[in-house]
Amino acid sequence: MSDLVEFNKDKSDFAKWYDTILIAADILDKRYPVKGMPVMKPAGWYIHEKIMRLAEDEWEKQGIDKCQFPTLIPETFLTKEEEHVAGFEKECFWVTKGGLNTLDIRLALRPTSETAMYSMFSLWVRSYADLPLKVHQSCNVFRYETKSTKPLIRVREIPWNEAHTAHATAEDAEENLRQAWVGYDEVINRQLGFYGLVLRRPEWDKFAGSIYTEVLDTIMPCGRVLQTVGAHNLGQKFAKVFDIKYQTEDNREEYAHMTCYGISTRVMAACLSIHGDDRGLVLPPVIAKVQAVVIPIKPKQPAEKTEENIAAAEASWQKILASSKKITAALQAAGIRAKLDDSDRTPGFKYAHWELRGIPLRVEVGPRDVDHEDEAEFECMMVPRNNNMPAGKGKKGKQAKQAAETPQTGLDKRLVKQADIAAEAHKFLDDIIDKLRDEAQRQHNERVVKCFRLSDVKKAMKKGKVALVPFCDMGDKGKQAEDRIREYLGADLPGEVRGWDPRITDSLEGKTCIASKPDEPDAAHYWAYIARAY
Amino acid sequence: MSDLVEFNKDKSDFAKWYDTILIAADILDKRYPVKGMPVMKPAGWYIHEKIMRLAEDEWEKQGIDKCQFPTLIPETFLTKEEEHVAGFEKECFWVTKGGLNTLDIRLALRPTSETAMYSMFSLWVRSYADLPLKVHQSCNVFRYETKSTKPLIRVREIPWNEAHTAHATAEDAEENLRQAWVGYDEVINRQLGFYGLVLRRPEWDKFAGSIYTEVLDTIMPCGRVLQTVGAHNLGQKFAKVFDIKYQTEDNREEYAHMTCYGISTRVMAACLSIHGDDRGLVLPPVIAKVQAVVIPIKPKQPAEKTEENIAAAEASWQKILASSKKITAALQAAGIRAKLDDSDRTPGFKYAHWELRGIPLRVEVGPRDVDHEDEAEFECMMVPRNNNMPAGKGKKGKQAKQAAETPQTGLDKRLVKQADIAAEAHKFLDDIIDKLRDEAQRQHNERVVKCFRLSDVKKAMKKGKVALVPFCDMGDKGKQAEDRIREYLGADLPGEVRGWDPRITDSLEGKTCIASKPDEPDAAHYWAYIARAY
Repeated sequence: MSDLVEFNKDKSDFAKWYDTILIAADILDKRYPVKGMPVMKPAGWYIHEKIMRLAEDEWEKQGIDKCQFPTLIPETFLTKEEEHVAGFEKECFWVTKGGLNTLDIRLALRPTSETAMYSMFSLWVRSYADLPLKVHQSCNVFRYETKSTKPLIRVREIPWNEAHTAHATAEDAEENLRQAWVGYDEVINRQLGFYGLVLRRPEWDKFAGSIYTEVLDTIMPCGRVLQTVGAHNLGQKFAKVFDIKYQTEDNREEYAHMTCYGISTRVMAACLSIHGDDRGLVLPPVIAKVQAVVIPIKPKQPAEKTEENIAAAEASWQKILASSKKITAALQAAGIRAKLDDSDRTPGFKYAHWELRGIPLRVEVGPRDVDHEDEAEFECMMVPRNNNMPAGKGKKGKQAKQAAETPQTGLDKRLVKQADIAAEAHKFLDDIIDKLRDEAQRQHNERVVKCFRLSDVKKAMKKGKVALVPFCDMGDKGKQAEDRIREYLGADLPGEVRGWDPRITDSLEGKTCIASKPDEPDAAHYWAYIARAY
Repeated sequence: MSDLVEFNKDKSDFAKWYDTILIAADILDKRYPVKGMPVMKPAGWYIHEKIMRLAEDEWEKQGIDKCQFPTLIPETFLTKEEEHVAGFEKECFWVTKGGLNTLDIRLALRPTSETAMYSMFSLWVRSYADLPLKVHQSCNVFRYETKSTKPLIRVREIPWNEAHTAHATAEDAEENLRQAWVGYDEVINRQLGFYGLVLRRPEWDKFAGSIYTEVLDTIMPCGRVLQTVGAHNLGQKFAKVFDIKYQTEDNREEYAHMTCYGISTRVMAACLSIHGDDRGLVLPPVIAKVQAVVIPIKPKQPAEKTEENIAAAEASWQKILASSKKITAALQAAGIRAKLDDSDRTPGFKYAHWELRGIPLRVEVGPRDVDHEDEAEFECMMVPRNNNMPAGKGKKGKQAKQAAETPQTGLDKRLVKQADIAAEAHKFLDDIIDKLRDEAQRQHNERVVKCFRLSDVKKAMKKGKVALVPFCDMGDKGKQAEDRIREYLGADLPGEVRGWDPRITDSLEGKTCIASKPDEPDAAHYWAYIARAY
C-alpha cells in the first residue's frame, strides 16, 4: 500500500519534510479527489484514534460522558447566535438535496457542534440538580476552507474530540476550564511529550460567540505556531440564545454558564513534527501501533565454504530466529506491542523502514548475541528510535568533528540479556518519552525571545523564533497596534499578536507597548506573543 | 438528563415496548429536529461503541487494518457502477454548496464507501504482493430514507463498521467471507448472546453491484425479521469499474476479487430487543458500562426509639456503607465495571432504576449481611438481571399459579460471602451471557415453523413466526412466485421471501414450490424463509 514518494531527509527544510514524511511513512494519502480530504491510512488513523482515546479517558475520569450528536445541523439553529453564525456561515458545506428532493431547510455539515448540542441541552436542563451537564464526542467536523489546505493542519474534514459543559455558576464554568487544561496537559505534555504556549487570545481573535478563548499554541520546527487545542468560556451567551435555563435551589430561574473545548488532528501534526528527525518519524510509545520491532540478523556467509562452516552458520541463524521469536513473545506477554520482522529484506533496509515510521524501539539479534553455551547468556542490542549517534566513532577529520559536536539529545543504545528483555523494554519506553519531552521543552525554550523593539521582533522571527513583547491592549486599541506591527513586518513575515499568558508575572512597570506610535508611548499591560501562525 | 417517558412495561406489545424503552433507559433522544437523526445519549453510545470495538478486534485479528476515508464522495464516483448508483442515487444527501459557492461537482454524504475506497484501491494495488488488501472503518453513513424511520433500525445517519477487501482469486474472496462470518458469529452469537438466520438473499434483493449477498436476519420478538449484518461478494464487478488490477506472478494482468461487509446499530437494536423484558433492558455484560451496581440497604427505624436503638441502627448503617464501598472497590480491582449507588433514593427506586437500564448484576448489602462479629462472615445478595422470579412465594391464588407457571428462563439470585465477591461476580457475569444466549436460541427455535401450504404460512406469521418453505427459484421466476405469495398474504401481512440457507440439507426430492400455481406444480430447489421484515 506504500506510495512511492521521495522523503526529504532534511528536517531543516521543514515544509518539505512535513509534506513528504506523511506520505512516505504511510500516514495518509492525499490523492483522494476532494480538496482537503485526505484518506487516513492505518498507520495514521491508529495514531489519531490513540490521541482521541487519551483525551476521552481524561474526560471520562472527570465525569464527562461520551455521546454522539447528528452530523447535520439545520440552518435555523446555526443562525440563532449572531456572532457564531458570522464566524461560520462562509465555512459550511450545505446539504440542499435529499435524493431528488430539494430540502425545505438547508442542513449544514457541522463546522462544530455548539448549536446542535445546545438545542438539546435546553431540553435536558430543568433544575440545578441537572447541572453540571458535561458531554463530549469524538466525530468529524467540516469546514469549507478557501485557504490552501495542509494535511492534519488545515483540512476540510476534521476528526476531533469536542467537550461541552453547562454549569450553575460562572465559578464552576471557570473551574471546569481549569480541569480541561489539566486534561490537555496530561495528554499532550505528559503522554505525547510536547506542549507550547497556553495563551488567552485577543478579543479580535476569540471563538465566535465566546466571552474568551484560551489556546495551546505549539511552536513548530519552522518557528510558526500552530493552535493545537482551544478552550472557550461561553458565559451565558449561548444559554440565552438556546434557552438553557435552570431552577435554582431557591426557585429562581437562571441561565447556565457554559464552556467548550476541542482537540483535533493538529495535535498529531505537532507531535509528529516536533519529535521527528532527518530519518523520519519518532513516535511517543503510547501512540505507536508497533512499539518494538525485533530484527534477526543473518550470519555472514562463511569465507571458507566448507560443509561444516555452512552448517554452523545455518545453526546460528536458526538460534537467532528462535531467539527473536521468544523475545517478541516475551515483549507481547509484558503488554508491549511488539512485532517480529523476519522478512527477506536486509537488516539495513529494515532499520530504515522502521526508523522512517518512528517505531520507538528496535531489538537486534545477531550471531554474537546467541554465541553462548548457556541460553541465559544470550543477549540482544536494544536501540531506541531517538538514539544518540556514536560520537565520531570510526569517522575522521571533519566528519568526526561534526559528529562530536552534534548535541546528545537522545538515549544510548545498549546490549541487554535476553532474559531481561521485558523489564529493559519497559524502562526504555519510559525513558524514550521522558527524553522526547525534555528535548521538546529545550527546543521550545530556545525559540522564545523577549523583545522590546520591533526590529528585534523581525530579527527573531527571521530566525524562526517567537517574540514575547510588552503590549498595550487586547481590544480595539490592541487591534490597531497589531495592524501597525503587521505593517512593519511586511507581507513576507506575516506575524500576528497571538495573545497573552496571564501566568507571566514579570513586572510591566514603566514598560511601553512595542507597537507604540513614535512620540505617543502607550503603557504596556500584557506580555504578548508575536508569531507567524499556521 | 432523563426524559420523562412512560415505559411500556409489557414486552408482548413489542412496538410500544421498543419505542419507550430506548427513551426511558436513556439510550437516545428523538427530539433532535432532523428526521431520522436521533441523539445517541451516553448509555446508548457506550453500547454501540463497544459493539463496534468487538467487531474491530475481530478484524484486527484477521489482519484487516483500520483506516478512515472521507465522508464526501464526488457524484462522478458514485455513478461509475450502474447497478450501484441505481441502488443509491435516490437515497443520497447531496452537498451542493460550499460557503456561498455552488460546487462544480455535487458531493454525496457516503451512503456506503465502496466507491470512495475503491478509487484509492486502484492506486494501492499494483502487484500480487499487494494482495490481499483488507481495510475496515468505523464511521457514519447517510441515507435519505423516505420510509418512516425507527431508532437504531431505519435512520438517516447510521453509525457502523464496514470492511472492504480485495483478493487475487475468487477462492480467496470466498474464504475471506467465511472468515467474516466467523467474526460476526464471535461478536453477535458468543459475546452478545443472540443470532438468527444466515441467509443468501434472492437475486432481486441483493446488494446493488454484488454477485451475491449474505445476511444475518435476526427474528425480533414480534416475529418480524431484521437484517442485522450483511456481507457481499462483489466478484470483479467493482474492480473492473474502478480499474483495480494487479500483475500476477507470471506477469499477467488480472482484476481483483472483492468483498465487503458491514455491522451497524441494528445489532444493538436486536440485542436490546431480544434480551429485554417487562422490567426493561437486560444487557450482556460485555456491553454494559456498569456491570455491577452495589446498593446499600438502610436498617429500618427502630420501633422503640431509645437512644441505644437509634445508635445501634446508625452503627449498622455505617457498617453497611463501609462494606458496600469495599465490595465496589474489590469488584473494580477484579476488572469489573462496578458502581456504588449510595444516593438518597429508596432501595426499591434503585432496583427499578438499574433494572430498567439492564445492569447485569445487583449486589445488595443489608443489616443482616453485616450482623456478624467476624468480618469474614459478612455476606451480600447477588441478583442477576435475568433473575428467576420466586415461584409464587408470598402470592396467593391466581397470582401464585401464574408465577409458578412462568418458565424459569433466567438464573437464581444467591447469598455469597463478601470475601468471595470478585470470583462470584465473574462467575455470574459468565453465567448471565450463557443463559441469555440459551434463552435467545430457544425463542428463535420456537419462532421458525416449516410450512408446505400458504395457508400455514399465513397462520404462522399471524402468530409472530417465520415460515421455512420449499421454494422454486431465486431469480426472475422466483420473483414471480414471491409476488403470488405477497398477493395471497395481503397488505396486512406483508411477508416476503428473505432468502435461503444453503446449510439446510433436508431433501427436497418430490417437494413442490409453496407458491406453485394451481395445476402447475413447480419443483422446489430451495428451503426459503418467508417473513415480514423491518
